[in-house]
Amino acid sequence: MDSATRNALEAVRNAAPAVHCITNSVAQNFTANVMLALGAQPSMTHDAAEVAEFVASSDALLINLGTLDDGRRRAIDLAITSAENTGIPWVLDPVMIERSHKRAEAAAMYLLRKPTLIRANRREADLMAGGLEDAPLMNFARAADVLFAVTGPVDLVVSGNNIRRCERGSHLMNSVTAFGCALSAVIAAFLAVHDDREAAVLAALEVVGEAGEAAALTAGGPGSFAVSFIDRLAGIGREAS
Amino acid sequence: MDSATRNALEAVRNAAPAVHCITNSVAQNFTANVMLALGAQPSMTHDAAEVAEFVASSDALLINLGTLDDGRRRAIDLAITSAENTGIPWVLDPVMIERSHKRAEAAAMYLLRKPTLIRANRREADLMAGGLEDAPLMNFARAADVLFAVTGPVDLVVSGNNIRRCERGSHLMNSVTAFGCALSAVIAAFLAVHDDREAAVLAALEVVGEAGEAAALTAGGPGSFAVSFIDRLAGIGREAS
Amino acid sequence: MDSATRNALEAVRNAAPAVHCITNSVAQNFTANVMLALGAQPSMTHDAAEVAEFVASSDALLINLGTLDDGRRRAIDLAITSAENTGIPWVLDPVMIERSHKRAEAAAMYLLRKPTLIRANRREADLMAGGLEDAPLMNFARAADVLFAVTGPVDLVVSGNNIRRCERGSHLMNSVTAFGCALSAVIAAFLAVHDDREAAVLAALEVVGEAGEAAALTAGGPGSFAVSFIDRLAGIGREAS
Repeated sequence: MDSATRNALEAVRNAAPAVHCITNSVAQNFTANVMLALGAQPSMTHDAAEVAEFVASSDALLINLGTLDDGRRRAIDLAITSAENTGIPWVLDPVMIERSHKRAEAAAMYLLRKPTLIRANRREADLMAGGLEDAPLMNFARAADVLFAVTGPVDLVVSGNNIRRCERGSHLMNSVTAFGCALSAVIAAFLAVHDDREAAVLAALEVVGEAGEAAALTAGGPGSFAVSFIDRLAGIGREAS
Repeated sequence: MDSATRNALEAVRNAAPAVHCITNSVAQNFTANVMLALGAQPSMTHDAAEVAEFVASSDALLINLGTLDDGRRRAIDLAITSAENTGIPWVLDPVMIERSHKRAEAAAMYLLRKPTLIRANRREADLMAGGLEDAPLMNFARAADVLFAVTGPVDLVVSGNNIRRCERGSHLMNSVTAFGCALSAVIAAFLAVHDDREAAVLAALEVVGEAGEAAALTAGGPGSFAVSFIDRLAGIGREAS
Repeated sequence: MDSATRNALEAVRNAAPAVHCITNSVAQNFTANVMLALGAQPSMTHDAAEVAEFVASSDALLINLGTLDDGRRRAIDLAITSAENTGIPWVLDPVMIERSHKRAEAAAMYLLRKPTLIRANRREADLMAGGLEDAPLMNFARAADVLFAVTGPVDLVVSGNNIRRCERGSHLMNSVTAFGCALSAVIAAFLAVHDDREAAVLAALEVVGEAGEAAALTAGGPGSFAVSFIDRLAGIGREAS
């Protein structure tokens, strides 16, 4: 871990940012445990009566489109407005938009609300940007005026005028459900405490990648990998140096 | 593992079937991780606006009646219709119908939609078939025109005219919530890639039972058993032979 | 473990109480696994059509206010009425009321229904009782006519006229999401089988604390701690003596 990443991680741990996560019901428990291991404070309600107040006292917001339903749609609208009012960063995770036109339309609509960052896997990014080459990715980021993190074997952090790469992690991350969803929440936590957004995202990817690599060393499969990843994330950067 | 089971497992891994799971909120995360460990592709939405399209691009469907609510009821109806339109197999898991007349009525109604298979534990099967002896079980399977998997210390695969048995697994399976729910999803994945339904179900039971036995060898209790089961399921049949 | 705690634990295991849990979607899976490890029987629906019947055949009820929504609000009202009709104990867990006025109001309303016990962390307890010193805590318990368990590094069991303390457990409990939620369910299970409520709560805190201490001995972090806690809870009191 380089010193920039180490400093970014320290900043997250010192600030213990409150990150409100409107996320899918498959991902909620794992995401909350990842956030606690990181040192952030997750909250997860998506009730219209409560969500604005939760977001108003949060340092970042995650909008994940998995298991989207009427309750989540109402809450997302209120939550984004609350985030705009206090000026906190928010991350959009357009889960599985390639499987549903309705969900892809919802993602397009939320894009107009100008998320700070979109995190997508390669299939989702391909659908959004119309291609995975540098040009369509940067064109998309420029047109939508967002930072775009496309994660996979090589993670890309795409802005309107450049692409930075991060090649960390383990193939086992693909075998644990909601790993990408939890990564989006981690990125939100880093954005909460850093003004340099690209650096924040790269630090988040480095930290998760390094914890994943360490977990993979001893894992007997995806079950023990997920458990060990939580342990490693909680311990990362705390090793005697 | 005999060669028929090994071939069935290989077929699942090669096809990586998409299995849409309308399942209860307790079971979603574990079921998704079991499906990924097996090599299948789970999806889990139960929103009326999205579910038909998800099912239309799936290879099998699971309908699990735990935490049934208005949203799930609407989605189940749309999902079954979508499954009928494309002719994919679907599995009904009538969770805890012995605890609620309303849910038992719902199960009876879904039975009329002719699921490919019902997977139930012994209490649920007793309520559905009116007895656990061979005669009522086979009568039920014949009358309802379904395959009926009754799981427990000895698993039964019941058709209208015979019963086949599988005696694999570990008592620890009963101490992990949603284990039966996840098993129903696994069966759906095997049905997606096999025309011989009874053989498909028996192979699914063998695979899960063998992974469970291997996990029990080293488990210190139900917590580590669940983790190790995921590892073993991901590794099963990949051992050097 | 003293003999009173051991006897209380034996009583839970022998009775295998059915505990209906209306709890948040983050906590459901972990809570269910904790209950199974303890030897209780969890159920989790919060559907208006089903919940009263589930509660009517239960031995205790948990009302947890996390991820509160319209469906849960309707279900909570029906569930409490059903619990009153059969006279079973019920536990209120006012999750994160310090983050939402609406949720704090809901907690105040449910307080009027006279829960058997409230379990809260220190922030929630502070908001409810108006202070964490002995006097406001006991005044609150007396005025509300409830038993009040305030959990933290030192757990307090507060009645209208005394406070008993339990100093067990591990700091890792704070790093696992839904640990407190699951503890509330465990307390409900102990209340289901014991007439002496204070003794029941203290026994529940002792059992969870001892399992937590044992798990912490070998845990590499919060991920393996949660897994090991389930193992230890399933095995506690079963050691050769």
